[in-house]
Amino acid sequence: MTAPAPRVVALSGGVGGAKLALGLANCVAPDDLTIIANTGDDFDHLGLTICPDIDTLTYTLAGISNPETGWGRAGETWQFMESLAALGGETWFQLGDRDLATHIERSRRLADGESLTAITEEFRQRLGISPRILPMSDTAVRTIVETPDGPLPFQHYFVREQCTPVVTGFRFAGAADSCPAPGIADALADERLGAIVICPSNPFISIDPIFAVPGLRNMLAASQAPVVAVSPIVGGKALKGPTAKMMTELGLDSDAVAVARHYGDLLDGFVLDGSDADSENAVRALGVDVLVTDTVMQTLADKERLAREVLAFAATLQG
Amino acid sequence: MTAPAPRVVALSGGVGGAKLALGLANCVAPDDLTIIANTGDDFDHLGLTICPDIDTLTYTLAGISNPETGWGRAGETWQFMESLAALGGETWFQLGDRDLATHIERSRRLADGESLTAITEEFRQRLGISPRILPMSDTAVRTIVETPDGPLPFQHYFVREQCTPVVTGFRFAGAADSCPAPGIADALADERLGAIVICPSNPFISIDPIFAVPGLRNMLAASQAPVVAVSPIVGGKALKGPTAKMMTELGLDSDAVAVARHYGDLLDGFVLDGSDADSENAVRALGVDVLVTDTVMQTLADKERLAREVLAFAATLQG
Repeated sequence: MTAPAPRVVALSGGVGGAKLALGLANCVAPDDLTIIANTGDDFDHLGLTICPDIDTLTYTLAGISNPETGWGRAGETWQFMESLAALGGETWFQLGDRDLATHIERSRRLADGESLTAITEEFRQRLGISPRILPMSDTAVRTIVETPDGPLPFQHYFVREQCTPVVTGFRFAGAADSCPAPGIADALADERLGAIVICPSNPFISIDPIFAVPGLRNMLAASQAPVVAVSPIVGGKALKGPTAKMMTELGLDSDAVAVARHYGDLLDGFVLDGSDADSENAVRALGVDVLVTDTVMQTLADKERLAREVLAFAATLQG
Repeated sequence: MTAPAPRVVALSGGVGGAKLALGLANCVAPDDLTIIANTGDDFDHLGLTICPDIDTLTYTLAGISNPETGWGRAGETWQFMESLAALGGETWFQLGDRDLATHIERSRRLADGESLTAITEEFRQRLGISPRILPMSDTAVRTIVETPDGPLPFQHYFVREQCTPVVTGFRFAGAADSCPAPGIADALADERLGAIVICPSNPFISIDPIFAVPGLRNMLAASQAPVVAVSPIVGGKALKGPTAKMMTELGLDSDAVAVARHYGDLLDGFVLDGSDADSENAVRALGVDVLVTDTVMQTLADKERLAREVLAFAATLQG
């Protein structure tokens, strides 16, 4: 008789995180992966509640994401946006015709009093996804980007302003009054839990909002499972998105060591890309174990290989 | 120096009424046609406020309606509906991808405090439509269909139940607290007004809701312009929709005379189809002048010819 395989909890933002989440989903038994999704970049737009990271995870895991962008849906059409423009509506945030069904049905259910957790679970089942996807909280937490010209709601910074404003800090509005979504505490206290994986997402805007939910970071620290983060910085650059630019603006080195330092004593292990192998000793000096491997995920095989390596690395660590 | 051409006010529901409204629009100078649209079949669905008759009028007059159905948009696609079905959403009311832009932008503006009149006007200008389209009221009035099994909201009766329940009566919820939309009183008091045309719409569900707005029917009666109705019944049948079925269920003859009798002393003139010429004397006996002509509108030329004949007929009448 062999012991049951360990379970895995992953923390993820959108595109980069979803790649590793897909790899993990294909490496563990159904039901053995729980993904805690950032909801700090959720926002209300055109009367709809939009949850970009949950949607990117959902579409990616359901195999219906747009393979070119990493976000949005495959085979998407834009008739709605075109017609909205003709009526003088706001078009800076692209909403595809298929994607719109998610936002409208979610918004309708929220207005009917259903929780984001329940809605996300219903969509997961409808789309035939194995891993559980849990929003970090059922309470609205909204990332605010501080700039020299004043605060910007996250999507205004990220999409409308295309990350051009200089970042001086972040706030997570509503976080103080939020609590972890149901299911998170149980997943982290599970005695079969073998690894907590922080996906290669932006630490400031994808992972810090999760930590801002009171109690959640302490639950991660208290878990018997080791916490392993995969660096979103590869060769001193973010593969996608504004991570490196933000780090520079925040007065940090834009390197993998600074990411490991940012996560601090939560970490038991850190996964560095081969191009950052010279950072290995600096990370080890933080008291964190290190795996150096190829972290760039282009193909499905890349995602699965990195997921297997991360889980094997975690199995060597103490929580 | 010739006198300026007379202005026209039309009362209209959806498909049938919109055909004549388009004919009228092509027969009068820009700015000389005002259409008062039924909003009794408006409803809230999936968190959106949907105004089917305003939209059918708008799309028809903008030349972007679906020529086969008479409602909805040309070149429509259904990616949203297909994706909504996959998520377990309600799909009994068809919402096309292009059409959805209208509902989302309207709902957003209503939530921002704009009036239905202002939104309808903005859409009209954006889509380059000449006639003014005025909702009958900015206050929500909702047609309720009474049946032996209890009341049904209009779209549940009309679309979900496909008009199969027996009708015992109608209520216009909210009507008592409503008032005519801004612009209606002025349009009806205009000294250049030459005709008020009741389009060939269903009297019970498209025109009666307009009359249910306190004050509106009296404004029509007080206007110096003659009121002319075009029969929606042709050869004892409704060309489209449940008009004849409803009349039978309500214990009325399902003929054109019963429609004229329903409008009563508001009418100065009534337009009968040639196939109902044998009703002419019965209508005249009500004290209403009669024009017998071909009222079936298949082509644009049909619509324009009928509109010209109706206006010429009105010019012979006293208000």
